[in-house]
Parts: sequence; C-alpha cells; structure tokens
Amino acid sequence: MRFNTRTPLDQDIIMKATQHVANLTKPLGSLGALEEIYVRLAGITGQLHPDIGQKAVVIMCGDHGVAAEGVSAYPQAVTGLMIHNFVKGKAAVNVLARQHGAEVRVVDVGSLLDEVPPPVLNRQVRKGTANFTEGPAMSVNEAKQATEAGMAVVRELKEQGVRLLAVGEMGIGNTTPGTAVAAALTGLDVDSLTGRGTGVSNEGFHKKQQAIRQALAIHRPDPSRPLELLARIGGLEIAGMAGCYLGAAKEGLPVVMDGLISTAAALLAVKMEPAVREVLFASHLSVEPAHAALLRELGLEPLITAGMRLGEASGAVLSFPLFDSAVGLAREMATFADLGLPNPASIT
Amino acid sequence: MRFNTRTPLDQDIIMKATQHVANLTKPLGSLGALEEIYVRLAGITGQLHPDIGQKAVVIMCGDHGVAAEGVSAYPQAVTGLMIHNFVKGKAAVNVLARQHGAEVRVVDVGSLLDEVPPPVLNRQVRKGTANFTEGPAMSVNEAKQATEAGMAVVRELKEQGVRLLAVGEMGIGNTTPGTAVAAALTGLDVDSLTGRGTGVSNEGFHKKQQAIRQALAIHRPDPSRPLELLARIGGLEIAGMAGCYLGAAKEGLPVVMDGLISTAAALLAVKMEPAVREVLFASHLSVEPAHAALLRELGLEPLITAGMRLGEASGAVLSFPLFDSAVGLAREMATFADLGLPNPASIT
Repeated sequence: MRFNTRTPLDQDIIMKATQHVANLTKPLGSLGALEEIYVRLAGITGQLHPDIGQKAVVIMCGDHGVAAEGVSAYPQAVTGLMIHNFVKGKAAVNVLARQHGAEVRVVDVGSLLDEVPPPVLNRQVRKGTANFTEGPAMSVNEAKQATEAGMAVVRELKEQGVRLLAVGEMGIGNTTPGTAVAAALTGLDVDSLTGRGTGVSNEGFHKKQQAIRQALAIHRPDPSRPLELLARIGGLEIAGMAGCYLGAAKEGLPVVMDGLISTAAALLAVKMEPAVREVLFASHLSVEPAHAALLRELGLEPLITAGMRLGEASGAVLSFPLFDSAVGLAREMATFADLGLPNPASIT
Repeated sequence: MRFNTRTPLDQDIIMKATQHVANLTKPLGSLGALEEIYVRLAGITGQLHPDIGQKAVVIMCGDHGVAAEGVSAYPQAVTGLMIHNFVKGKAAVNVLARQHGAEVRVVDVGSLLDEVPPPVLNRQVRKGTANFTEGPAMSVNEAKQATEAGMAVVRELKEQGVRLLAVGEMGIGNTTPGTAVAAALTGLDVDSLTGRGTGVSNEGFHKKQQAIRQALAIHRPDPSRPLELLARIGGLEIAGMAGCYLGAAKEGLPVVMDGLISTAAALLAVKMEPAVREVLFASHLSVEPAHAALLRELGLEPLITAGMRLGEASGAVLSFPLFDSAVGLAREMATFADLGLPNPASIT
C-alpha cells in the first residue's frame, strides 16, 4: 500500500507563511493554533494564501459483527436508518455541512442494507464484518478493497475541486473496533480506553471491554502490520476512512479528522504511510477516552472541546469555520508595515 | 447598581427544548455542549427555536496607568494604534466579524487618544487609569460612569435588533488589572494566576507580579463590594465590559465572553447582579492561567481550546458559528418521530 505522496510540505512557503503571520498586527503567536493551521495549510497547498473554499465531508458506513455481543445501546438496523437519514439531509452532519457550505458524500463500504439508496455510493465490500471475538473481522483483501474505495472517493473529490476534507463514519457498534484498534496501536490498557459509545448500559459496557480484550487476545494484532491489524480487529468503514487519509496525502489535500473512530483510522493510515501525518488536522476532543490517546500518539491537539460523541464527522465539520478563520486572518489582517510601523515586538 | 432583569430564564421553554433535543436522531446527549447552549438560548430568548441571527461584538478600549511599571511587551501608544486599526477594519476581530456577519462596535471608555476616530464611540470617562500601585485606578464614580456606558451600548444594540453579543477589549497592560481582579475575586495566589500577556520578558513578568501583589496589599479589595474593587484595581474597559454584561442581563440578550479580561469583567458583573450568570456563555480558553480560574468560578466550560491570547473578543467571535450550529441542529435535524420510529434509546 505504499505510494509516492504528491509532494512533501513546501518548505519555502512554510517559511514565508511563518514570516507573514509574525508581521500581522497582533502579539507574536497570539492566535495560537490558528497560526499553526494557517502555516501548515500553506505548506500543503503550496499557496501563501491557501484556497480551502470548496469543502466536502466523506461519511464511511459499515456494520459490525461484534454488535452481536451486545456492545451498543442501539440495534444494528440503525446504521441503515441513518444512511437513509443522510439521504434526506436531516442528520446532524447534513445540518452542519449546509451551514458551512460543504458537500456531503456518503459511502456504504459494508452496511447490512440490501438496497443502498442513491446518491449514497455503493462500495459494499461485504455486508458487515464478522464478529471479531470469534475470528478476523474481514480478510486482508477485503480491508484492502475498502481502503482503495476510500482513496478513489478522495481522488474524485479533489478532481471536482474540493480543497478541504472532513472524514467521519456511521456504524452501530463501531466504538468497539475503534477502541480495539486504539489499544493495539497505543499499547494502552483497554480499561482506560473504553468509553460508553452511544450510551451503552453498565452491562453492555462490561461486554464491550470483554469483547475488546478477547479480540486482542485472539488476534495479537501487530502495529507494524497495519493492514492485517485493520482486517482482524477493524471495520469496513475504518478501512474506508484509512483510505481517505491515504488518498488525501497522495493528492496533497488537507483533511480533518473527527472523533475516536476516524482518528483510529488516521493512525492506521499513518502507520501504512507516515506522510499522511502531514495532511492531518484534529478538530474536536470526543468524550471517548481512547480519542485523546490517539491524538497524543499523532501529536495533534483538538480545537474544540464540546463534549461531543456523535460521529458522522460532526465535530470535524463543526471545526470548518476555524480553518476558514485561520486562512482569512492571514489574508485580511493588517501587517505592522501596512500601518507604517515597525513590529512593536521588535522595538521593546 | 441593582436592577430588575427583564425575565428569569423561561422554564417552560427550557423544558420543551430539553425534550426536543432528546428526540433528535442522535444518541442522547451526544452533541454535548451544543445541546446545553441550545437549551439555554431557548430559555433566555423564550423561543423554542432561538433567533440569534443578528450579531454584534463590542470592543471596550482603555489605557492603564500601571503600564508605567513596565508590565507589558508593548508601549501604551499601541492601544490608540489598534483603535485606528479597528476603524480600518484590519484587526483580527474585524476579519472574524466579517466572516460571521457580526457588526463591530468599538467604544473608547478611556484610552489616551485626544481625538477618537469615528465611528468609534467616544465615551472616554478619563484618559487612562491612574497607576494602581500608587492609588486607586479611578474613582468609584468613574467606574460607575464607564459601566453605565457599557449598559447603554448594549441597550442600543438590542434595540437595533442584535440577538447575540460578544464582548472584548483592547488596552495595553490590561492583563495586569485583569489578573489583579481575578486574584481578588477568586482568592487564588498571584503566582499561579499571572501569565505573560502579550509576551512580556522575564523582567517584565516579575514586575507584573510585583505590581499585582502591591495593588492587592495597598487596596485590600473586598469581593463583596465589586464596584469599589473595580475602581481600585480594575480598568475603564473592564468597567465598560461589566456594564455590557449587566446590560445583556437586563435586556435578556445572550452574551459571549472572550478571554481573561472580559471574563474578569463578567465575574465582577455577576458579583454586582447574580442574574448576569444566566446570559453568559464561555467561548475559548485563553493561555492566560487566570482565565481558567475565572471560568471555574463562573461554572462555565470553554468550547474552543486553540491556545489563543489576543483579546479584542477574537475568541468570542470565533465561537459564533458554534452557537449557530447549536440552534441550527435543533431546528433542522430529524426527530425519531419524523422517521416514523420510536426513539431507539427507549427500545433497547
């Protein structure tokens, strides 16, 4: 799965952008993460004033055999119902995407639906994963197919002019594989990483921890073999999202992660291809404890801490205006030179 | 300074809004702080679908006698230069306000400018405060005048149709009185509360801590007498902002705080009139350590953690789209009933 990324970050533009932001009429560094975002967007796009106007959000959907273990508060049928809700434009991510002018691209890489409603892209690799407490969630070949589906979607979006991407998911039960992947990749304890997902009961919570522990014991996933790890304890939408990140790195497209599951997919993609890290941006901090652990592993800080835990890329799309602000501030603020002044930081 | 607030929160609408948000097609509580914001906005406005379309940001400006102690990285003249920059529309807050369709209202309650450039409102109570390491920053009567100027500005904005307000400031040296007010109101140690402001040197940082300690020792400010405390160790723009919050409570207008200084003013306003707390919203978490302490005292959590420390209400205006999202999600998302379904949370 290795490939040549389009370009490494443009170091010349990064230097110019860093210099530019230091000359704006504000104390040095006082825009915090917005300055870092601006500089990195400049480096990715190769533009001193990055064009991120056209935006899209990809929602990868899949079902999970491990749902049979009673790990979720919701029945599996809700995955399909939510796919229909996306089509109606009535889910949370639809509202947020309308607010911020982003196109919504829903991709079914493996739900249980027999009929995938258009305009959802039918890229079903199989109908849901197998229960990973009993065997691998899917074959390596299936994981590869789902990953390639994600890469293809991103390539198309880039060709259509999309310049900023958000990636998220829908799949009942998927905080279980998400947490399993996080545990396998970080080496941290399952107890400290497992959360309540959509709001599972105490009983379900213990089943969930048990399922994750069992999966790790059976599969002994090896972080140095990320595709195999993904196949054994991951999910189809996790593979699809990993493909989106790989595609974003290949296309030189900045991409915003959402919560636990999309960030687990991102760390998998980084393990497959380290250059992915350069195009990744964090958005919000999920209530799910494994999310913070994954962000730490990626060395990224969230922008929004609103206690959300919805998925659907909702936190990622919610953060889009902050990216617009980062770019807009760099483009529209006065420099000290504009005001006919030396930079006060240099004269005191 | 006590007055009748327009109304307490509308408890009937709060109940209806809480019920409404529980029926949206998402796990219960999964939108986190956005749900709380929506419900409280409903309670403040008395509308199940709150109208917060028309927005404004008030920037209170003032200078500080304590700047003579060498507590800032910037010379005092920068306050006036930034007022001119606001007029040109080239400061950070102007860019953010344009992005989010908010009107910018700049109010000079006490800069050193001899000529206040229109359309900045000239409400100068005096030209800068006195050095509070030597005596009171201003008289109680002056603090009252500046506070009343803030109340009047908010009343006008409400009459003009503004439905969501952000409050911030400009004033070289004002993290010093901001931190002094925070120390006096929270009782916490000056060392743990003091930050670098705009980026003062080590030498300036020690002078700053020394100035704050000296002010607290001389004035022995009493948190139960907030107007006197404000006069002794506060600032003119801090008084102006306190007036904005008092005005917002009186007018039933939701108001978003920015960082350290605007939050110190908000806590002062709450001490003057506890009903202010009901209309206050946090936006971002500043790098200034006293900011977190003030938010804890108010019992509010920030939405954005971007490591900013600029002032000018920049963090508050940056958070405006999150408020629009909170309201938009409640208005546009499907309920389970819309999909012809019982709430899955109730059937599992």
